[in-house]
Amino acid sequence: MSNELQPKVVIVIFGATGDLAKRKLFPSIYRLYQSGKISKNFAVVGLARRPWTDEVLRENVTKSINEAISPEEDLEEFTSHFYYQPFDVTDESSYNGLHMLINDLEGTYQTEGNRVFYLAMAPDFFGTIANKLKEYGLKESAGWSRLVIEKPFGRDLESAKVLNKELRAAFDEQQIYRIDHYLGKEMVQNIEVIRFANGIFEHLWNNRFISNIQITSSETLGVEERARYYDHSGAARDMVQNHILQMVALLAMEPPISLTTEEIRSEKIKVLRALRNMDPEQVGDFFVRGQYDSGDMKGEAVQGYRDEAEELATSNTETFVAGKLLIDNYRFAGVPIYIRTGKRMAEKSTKIVIEFKDIPMNLYFKKDNDRHPNLLIINIQPNEGITLCLNAKKSGNGALSEPIQLAYNHNAVSGINTPEAYEKLLYDCMVGDATNFTHWDEVALSWEFVDTILDVWSKNTADFPNYKSGSMGPDAADELLAKDGFHWWSI
Amino acid sequence: MSNELQPKVVIVIFGATGDLAKRKLFPSIYRLYQSGKISKNFAVVGLARRPWTDEVLRENVTKSINEAISPEEDLEEFTSHFYYQPFDVTDESSYNGLHMLINDLEGTYQTEGNRVFYLAMAPDFFGTIANKLKEYGLKESAGWSRLVIEKPFGRDLESAKVLNKELRAAFDEQQIYRIDHYLGKEMVQNIEVIRFANGIFEHLWNNRFISNIQITSSETLGVEERARYYDHSGAARDMVQNHILQMVALLAMEPPISLTTEEIRSEKIKVLRALRNMDPEQVGDFFVRGQYDSGDMKGEAVQGYRDEAEELATSNTETFVAGKLLIDNYRFAGVPIYIRTGKRMAEKSTKIVIEFKDIPMNLYFKKDNDRHPNLLIINIQPNEGITLCLNAKKSGNGALSEPIQLAYNHNAVSGINTPEAYEKLLYDCMVGDATNFTHWDEVALSWEFVDTILDVWSKNTADFPNYKSGSMGPDAADELLAKDGFHWWSI
Repeated sequence: MSNELQPKVVIVIFGATGDLAKRKLFPSIYRLYQSGKISKNFAVVGLARRPWTDEVLRENVTKSINEAISPEEDLEEFTSHFYYQPFDVTDESSYNGLHMLINDLEGTYQTEGNRVFYLAMAPDFFGTIANKLKEYGLKESAGWSRLVIEKPFGRDLESAKVLNKELRAAFDEQQIYRIDHYLGKEMVQNIEVIRFANGIFEHLWNNRFISNIQITSSETLGVEERARYYDHSGAARDMVQNHILQMVALLAMEPPISLTTEEIRSEKIKVLRALRNMDPEQVGDFFVRGQYDSGDMKGEAVQGYRDEAEELATSNTETFVAGKLLIDNYRFAGVPIYIRTGKRMAEKSTKIVIEFKDIPMNLYFKKDNDRHPNLLIINIQPNEGITLCLNAKKSGNGALSEPIQLAYNHNAVSGINTPEAYEKLLYDCMVGDATNFTHWDEVALSWEFVDTILDVWSKNTADFPNYKSGSMGPDAADELLAKDGFHWWSI
Repeated sequence: MSNELQPKVVIVIFGATGDLAKRKLFPSIYRLYQSGKISKNFAVVGLARRPWTDEVLRENVTKSINEAISPEEDLEEFTSHFYYQPFDVTDESSYNGLHMLINDLEGTYQTEGNRVFYLAMAPDFFGTIANKLKEYGLKESAGWSRLVIEKPFGRDLESAKVLNKELRAAFDEQQIYRIDHYLGKEMVQNIEVIRFANGIFEHLWNNRFISNIQITSSETLGVEERARYYDHSGAARDMVQNHILQMVALLAMEPPISLTTEEIRSEKIKVLRALRNMDPEQVGDFFVRGQYDSGDMKGEAVQGYRDEAEELATSNTETFVAGKLLIDNYRFAGVPIYIRTGKRMAEKSTKIVIEFKDIPMNLYFKKDNDRHPNLLIINIQPNEGITLCLNAKKSGNGALSEPIQLAYNHNAVSGINTPEAYEKLLYDCMVGDATNFTHWDEVALSWEFVDTILDVWSKNTADFPNYKSGSMGPDAADELLAKDGFHWWSI
């Protein structure tokens, strides 16, 4: 694991005609190439059902890069590394053809047998592909072979176990890179650094000083053309099981003894093991589900979830989840971690608010409810940065205080040089750093937690729709905090 | 002590033709009047030797306000409250004349007998004036009488005691308002609020978490036309005995049980009592004196202190002091407080840097000397604000950290509404709030500390000049920290 490494590699993308390849993977590979993080010893093989040719793929790659980055450079040299092969995931000849192509490219580009198999497609064939790659000898080479898996990793613990078993029949755990693109985000990676590279925070990072933590990941978009996929999933599967629980783990973990993949994962897993599982009858006290109604998004009328597509007319799928999590360990016992995520909410924003306990004695505030506790806000997206809310003296005579904000804006400082999540994760995979990918144990523990909730919800029909588009979710999400004496910080 | 009070008062300014009255007092009174903090029931009597008239004073008041603020308003109504009387501080008839004038004005303006006597002049006659005010009955009225004293309050403990005895023969301690205009500055007043109105800082505010504190108050100006006064004083008397030790007391005090004048002063006095006094032979280890040589201020050649006036040719007066202070109490034992102040330094700035101890284990820095401890910076002037220096993740792959700054700029937020120090202090005096004035005990303890240093310095000739104009002082000021393993933060 070194920043200096320039991996040599053949990247095989299953689903090369798809949206993820177009929006994320092609531009990321280009940026890695342009910044010198991958050498000229690389090739990309695009696979999908469609009868494209190398030229069509290259045109598409060019187009996607121009849309994402609009580089001034001529892309011809770069796209010449791209090759396309029509592919049927169940057909032996497809694999044999791919094998031959890879062997050719490894000769041409001197990639030393290193292979990334990136499954950028619907999950139905993850197991099949993995096993056929093994069966037809594609994962055997002079170099290393790694398998990158996009979410969703199952739709509950049971199906995740089945999928994992299939994958593990072909690949070792350390060859499997389960993408959670939140772990590639600058400010998510910053959680650890903020905590462990600053003398002042780690002392405060426990139940003596923190009163509660709030994680919000709100979207303004509805489901739109993803209706079908989404209705099968819902907010808990789509956001909580993976991204949000990963952030919880990073926020609550103990300092690792070193920054190796093993040590960090081991600390994160300990948090997920300490996450209090609910009895089914407690789910209603700790979790709130919602589904958006019609409403108003910045002055524009929008329809409710059930009107987005015909098959959603009676849907019981949640587009919003709020919950209260408890970590039963020495550090965080008694500190509620409130989470909420949803679609068609008032603003697009992912942020973490750490609310500190208040001063023991009120010297500077007129009334007790004028108190403003200190907040540390980690802005994940679209703004990236850190804000610390403090109290300072109100200008003028007298001893009154008012809240102030100390702000650090990561975008403003690092600007356009901030690498995109996929770019970092792809590079991490190629240099063999699995720290920012999820280990099977994390996946399993997360499903175990979410399954309890989903089981209860699946057993009764929700009173949907229950929040207006353009709001911050159902009232019950506010009551969740209010009954503990807190409220969501909107800062 | 309430923000709502609109005091009714006659303000008598001794030294009304002087610089302080012109630059600070007239504009401050105007701002208080304009913002409604003083009612129309007020009058100002200007006194000085010169044979001015009411009209001349009013013209001067108008001019000074126009220079300081340039209000759009017509000043005629405001300046009609100003009266002038030529005054000889040793002459009985002057006092009798003043007495009659005040009696008249109290009738005209219905000021209920409240009187502020503001001694805005050289200190030689402070005692005389105070006693004659008493002798001729000027401090007896139906309302209250208060005496405001400008610095310097003596030039050592002995002379301060003499002066205090004289004043106290005429006025009670609680009638005496010793101005230290630093205590009127927004961000100096903020030290207390930052510490005691924020849940996160007070826990960190001790020798377990703070490694050292640095106070810098640097000026770019030389002594110029103040040469004569200054040479009699020097940096230790001019800055350390008052302003800097007051900041030290605010930084190191325990939380008061309430915000009353008595409680706050009592905590500050405890700090000054805990300030470690040096044996004479230790002064050289803990304190550094300097005098500026010629040099370069932003490209312009300037002369050394000894060339500023003929009588300075062999001057032994320090224009720079740096020192290491130790507070021997449970909270701050072992935390050095480094101070430095001087003239003709590289920049004009007063700021406090609190350097926190480093993380116990270095996870994120390549080399040990890459570490960046957390710093809390309180900017007093000319910038007003708070900066917190933290470490965050360096953009891109890998686990490296880099220093970032979270900043709050008080000027930018409160803007032109920030009241000037004198405005606040004058108002505090009129409403009887002595919190931000120095108690005699503070003056005495500060002189006791500074006298030890001055005694040693007076006994031997310094190797002056020893720092270039435009530098940050003599090398010895850097070595003072270097021998403890620290360095001045220039942020």
